[in-house]
Amino acid sequence: MSSGTFEVQILGCGAALPAYNRNPSAHVVRIHEQSYLVDCGEGTQFQFNKYKVKRSKIQHIFITHLHGDHVFGLPGLITSYNLINRQEELHVYGPSGIEKMIRQFLSYAAGEPRFRLEFHEINNLDGDWFFEDSHVRVRSLPLKHKITCCGYLFEEKISKRKLDVAALQKLAIPIKMWNLIESGHDIKLEDGRIFKNDELSISPYRNRRYAYCSDTVYNEQLIPYLTNIDLLYHETTYLDELREKALENGHSTAKQAAQIAAKAGVKCLLTGHYSSRYDSLDKIIEECQSVFPNTILGEEGKVVQISPEFNGLE
Amino acid sequence: MSSGTFEVQILGCGAALPAYNRNPSAHVVRIHEQSYLVDCGEGTQFQFNKYKVKRSKIQHIFITHLHGDHVFGLPGLITSYNLINRQEELHVYGPSGIEKMIRQFLSYAAGEPRFRLEFHEINNLDGDWFFEDSHVRVRSLPLKHKITCCGYLFEEKISKRKLDVAALQKLAIPIKMWNLIESGHDIKLEDGRIFKNDELSISPYRNRRYAYCSDTVYNEQLIPYLTNIDLLYHETTYLDELREKALENGHSTAKQAAQIAAKAGVKCLLTGHYSSRYDSLDKIIEECQSVFPNTILGEEGKVVQISPEFNGLE
Repeated sequence: MSSGTFEVQILGCGAALPAYNRNPSAHVVRIHEQSYLVDCGEGTQFQFNKYKVKRSKIQHIFITHLHGDHVFGLPGLITSYNLINRQEELHVYGPSGIEKMIRQFLSYAAGEPRFRLEFHEINNLDGDWFFEDSHVRVRSLPLKHKITCCGYLFEEKISKRKLDVAALQKLAIPIKMWNLIESGHDIKLEDGRIFKNDELSISPYRNRRYAYCSDTVYNEQLIPYLTNIDLLYHETTYLDELREKALENGHSTAKQAAQIAAKAGVKCLLTGHYSSRYDSLDKIIEECQSVFPNTILGEEGKVVQISPEFNGLE
Repeated sequence: MSSGTFEVQILGCGAALPAYNRNPSAHVVRIHEQSYLVDCGEGTQFQFNKYKVKRSKIQHIFITHLHGDHVFGLPGLITSYNLINRQEELHVYGPSGIEKMIRQFLSYAAGEPRFRLEFHEINNLDGDWFFEDSHVRVRSLPLKHKITCCGYLFEEKISKRKLDVAALQKLAIPIKMWNLIESGHDIKLEDGRIFKNDELSISPYRNRRYAYCSDTVYNEQLIPYLTNIDLLYHETTYLDELREKALENGHSTAKQAAQIAAKAGVKCLLTGHYSSRYDSLDKIIEECQSVFPNTILGEEGKVVQISPEFNGLE
């Protein structure tokens, strides 16, 4: 049985001020056949074209906060969905204020969507599991930035369990019940016997987890939320020599991101949101790897695939 | 005496839906040492970086209308000016509603400018000369689109006239008056004689004129405004086989743009705002040139220099 897709593609890895052709923040998270967009900085729709991201596959967009480099691409994307006569509904999750911000702006541009656009304002940033579909559930993560900022944790949902055929045969479970068991149900047989699902099936693979943390100061209170994370994206705006500037601007250094990754025991760290002062990113990745070797340098277009055996090595 | 710079650089030549790496509308107009931005579609600030446009040289931005592909780059650009601690004031001209649209949006993003940002809403679209500095004056042009849309005509101002030395000597005009005459003043001599400036000096070069017309249906009422134009940018969204679709969407065909250029007797036509249906632009330029040979194909990054002897040939 295939484990299904679970991957992250980086569409932008720059901070607020554009520099060195780095676009502002946007990640596409592909889980099974579904795609989710996290943050939508200016130009994200152009990045869709450049990296062949199928915009029609996106039904859910998660915005961390209302700073321009994370949300200014949303009006243009919605307008384009209108122009291509999108029929499917689109759901946008983000902090309080996002709905008014976007709807007002679009109304001046005569760009109110003709498709169903729903905003879901997230007021509980404290790990609330606020979203679920057949592929994934998503919780908020409490980030500490200059304005309200919500991180996101994506946890894969397993749709079908692997049947423990030996057990099924030994217990003489009728074949007509096997579909139910595969779908995760407990069963009750006509002869009165009752079985918990995990007596008859096993997880086909563990639930993979991706956490997206941008923008935030170094914050150890995040760590309890980051258990069993395969891939942690944590912003690395500055080198550690600018630790004070980072704090002042509501950001983290590369070293601090690596410290969070190490303390949370994640499998792998992904960097990004680089200050416009850095042309080369060599020192960013060096600084992370000196604390947390299993760090991947986030670069535009890069795809990080999380296989069931994912250990973060490229 | 040098004639000074007068040139147009195209930063975006796509229509509303992004396609084929064509960015949405934005032109930089450089007149003498000053730069002016006309329209500011999403991603314009990234195009500044790509084409080495000095953002600090821009103090005046002219927006034709509030459709996203002409204005969605403005919030990001203003935010970046804030981040680089811009001190100079910035003036934005555009149709009614632009100030509220941009200021509201920026307020959600905590992006209210710390520099002086002034909006000038243009209510008279009927050829009003509404702007003047030492290099240029600008008038509105009445475009006909689905929403209120204002074209712009840039007319160079001549700062110093060329002295007619033979006349000055013949009339025995004292040398101490020559500076005044060079600056365009009429003069009155101590002996009572009075001279009009044009008796003593000649224009060092004619006043060059650039007209920017996007977006608009075919509209012959524009023609009287387009006298003595060196370079006319007129949108060419579709080929003429889609003439009805053009009208329906408030746009022009390549042939129609060429007809306006021919009837107005401009020196040269510049194309742009191409529909996402066209990958190749060969037919667009062919269609224009069949009606108006002196057409330049607008392409991203291209600079069209208007010399005093400009005839549009590249």
